[in-house]
Amino acid sequence: MSLPELKRPLVCHIPVCPFSQRLEILLALKGLSDAVDFHVVDITRPRPGWLLERTEGTTAMPVLLLPDGGVIKESLVILRYLEEAFPEPVIARRDPVERAFERMLIAHEGPFTACGYRFVMNRDPDARDAHVERMLEEFGKLDAFLTRHNPDGTYLFDRFGLAEAVFTPIFMRFWFLEYYEGFDLPQTADYARVRRWREACLEHAHVDQVSREEIIKLYYDYALGAGNGALPEGRQVSSLVFTPHWSARPWPPRDKYGRAATDRELGLLAG
Amino acid sequence: MSLPELKRPLVCHIPVCPFSQRLEILLALKGLSDAVDFHVVDITRPRPGWLLERTEGTTAMPVLLLPDGGVIKESLVILRYLEEAFPEPVIARRDPVERAFERMLIAHEGPFTACGYRFVMNRDPDARDAHVERMLEEFGKLDAFLTRHNPDGTYLFDRFGLAEAVFTPIFMRFWFLEYYEGFDLPQTADYARVRRWREACLEHAHVDQVSREEIIKLYYDYALGAGNGALPEGRQVSSLVFTPHWSARPWPPRDKYGRAATDRELGLLAG
Repeated sequence: MSLPELKRPLVCHIPVCPFSQRLEILLALKGLSDAVDFHVVDITRPRPGWLLERTEGTTAMPVLLLPDGGVIKESLVILRYLEEAFPEPVIARRDPVERAFERMLIAHEGPFTACGYRFVMNRDPDARDAHVERMLEEFGKLDAFLTRHNPDGTYLFDRFGLAEAVFTPIFMRFWFLEYYEGFDLPQTADYARVRRWREACLEHAHVDQVSREEIIKLYYDYALGAGNGALPEGRQVSSLVFTPHWSARPWPPRDKYGRAATDRELGLLAG
Repeated sequence: MSLPELKRPLVCHIPVCPFSQRLEILLALKGLSDAVDFHVVDITRPRPGWLLERTEGTTAMPVLLLPDGGVIKESLVILRYLEEAFPEPVIARRDPVERAFERMLIAHEGPFTACGYRFVMNRDPDARDAHVERMLEEFGKLDAFLTRHNPDGTYLFDRFGLAEAVFTPIFMRFWFLEYYEGFDLPQTADYARVRRWREACLEHAHVDQVSREEIIKLYYDYALGAGNGALPEGRQVSSLVFTPHWSARPWPPRDKYGRAATDRELGLLAG
C-alpha cells in the first residue's frame, strides 16, 4: 500500500493513543471533525513504508502529514498547529496572561502522564506504595494550580478549553490505574478541586472518542510492563492487535501482579 | 527588603542564566528592552522573602512577576507571554505551518541543553567519550532539522527569530565545553549546517548580554559537578557569588579533572 494523495491533513497514531485523542477533542470543540483524517497504525507490525518515507524514518507518533508533503511531529505542536490553522472558533485563551497560565498548566501534563504510565507498568508489588505517593503528588500539583487560578470554578477558566483537551485523554487512560491498581483519587478536601475538574472533563460531550472498556482491554500489556506493542513473556499476540476486535474480547484479569493471562484467555486468538 | 510596587513586569533570575537571556534577546529584537525589568538573585544566599511570598514558595527561576500580582513560570512560557503581550514587531513566525516547524525545533532545546550541562558537570574522565558522542548526536539532530527545513539558509527561516532567541544563550553557555572539555563541533560536512546556524546566532547584534569570560568564570563550579550555587568540596565561596566581581578574578584552570582551584586561586576572597 502506498500513501494516497492527501486531500486533508492526516494524523497517524497508535491505537487508543491519548496524544491523538486530544487532537480529535480540539477538532470536535471547533465543530471541525471532518477537517483532518485519522489513521490508526497497527504497531504489532512493522511501520508501513509510505509512513517511514514521509517521516524520514521517524517512528514516533502521532504525526501529522500535510497534503504538501510537510510533516508535523509532537502532539502539543500538532495541537497548536490545528488551533492556528483552523482559527475559528478559538479554543485557547486570547489574553496573553491567561494564555501563559494555560501553558503553565499544560506544562504539568508531561510529568503527570509519565507518572501514571510508570505506575501502571510497574511490576514490583513493593514499589506500589511509592507509585501511589508520586501519583498523589502530581494530582496535588494540579489541585494547587487550579485552586490558585480559579478556586471556585470547574475548569481552569470558564469553559472546557485547551488545557482540558490536553488532560482529558490522560484522565481517561488513568482508568487503567483504577482497574489494574485499585487506585483512585481519595475523596478528601486535598483533592477536591482537581477532582471537580477531572469529573467535568470526563463528562464533557466531546470526549467520547474512546471508551473505558477499550482502554482497559488494550492497555492490559502495559499493566504487565510491556508498552507500545511489545509482547509480555509467554504471549504471541499483543493486546493492541486489531483483530479480534476489543469489543469481542473478555475483560482482562484485574490482578496485574498475579499470574498473567494467556492469549487465549484474553480472546486474542482469531477464529 | 520588601518587593517595591512594580511598574513593569519583573524577571527574577540567577546569574548568567541562559533561560533569562533568551527573554532579553527577544525584547532587544523588539526594541523593547525597557518594557521589562530584570533582577539577578544571589543564589549563594537564601531566597529573599518577598520573592518566596510572591511565588508561593517556588524557588525555580526565571520567574516573571506581573504588576497585578500574577506570576508566570517556565522560561518558554514567559517567552511566549512577552511575544504576545508586546506583539509588535512579531518575532515568532506568523504562518501556522512555519510556527509548527519553529516549535519542533524549539522542542529540541531541552534535551540539547540537558546534554551539554551533563557533559560539563561530568566528573568521570572515563565517561568523557560517551558525553562527546551524545553531544554530537544532539548537534546532529539540529543539523538534520535545519537541513530538512532550510538547507541553503543560515537561520531556520529568513532571519534571526524565536528559535534563535531560544538556542543562542545555550550556544553561548556551551563555551564552557570548549574551555573545560576542549569540545567543539568538528569541522566536517556532517555539522556544516548547524555550525553555520550557530555562528550566525553568536554573531548577532542582540545577543551581547553576557560575555564568554563571564560564562567561563561563573560556571567553574559546574565544571566541578556543583550546579546552581552548590559548593564544590573544600570551597567556601561559590563561583556564582556577586563579589568580587567576575571581571576582577583570574581565569579558572581549564583542567576540570585535575586538582580543583581554591577560593583564593579563583579570586573569590574579598579584600
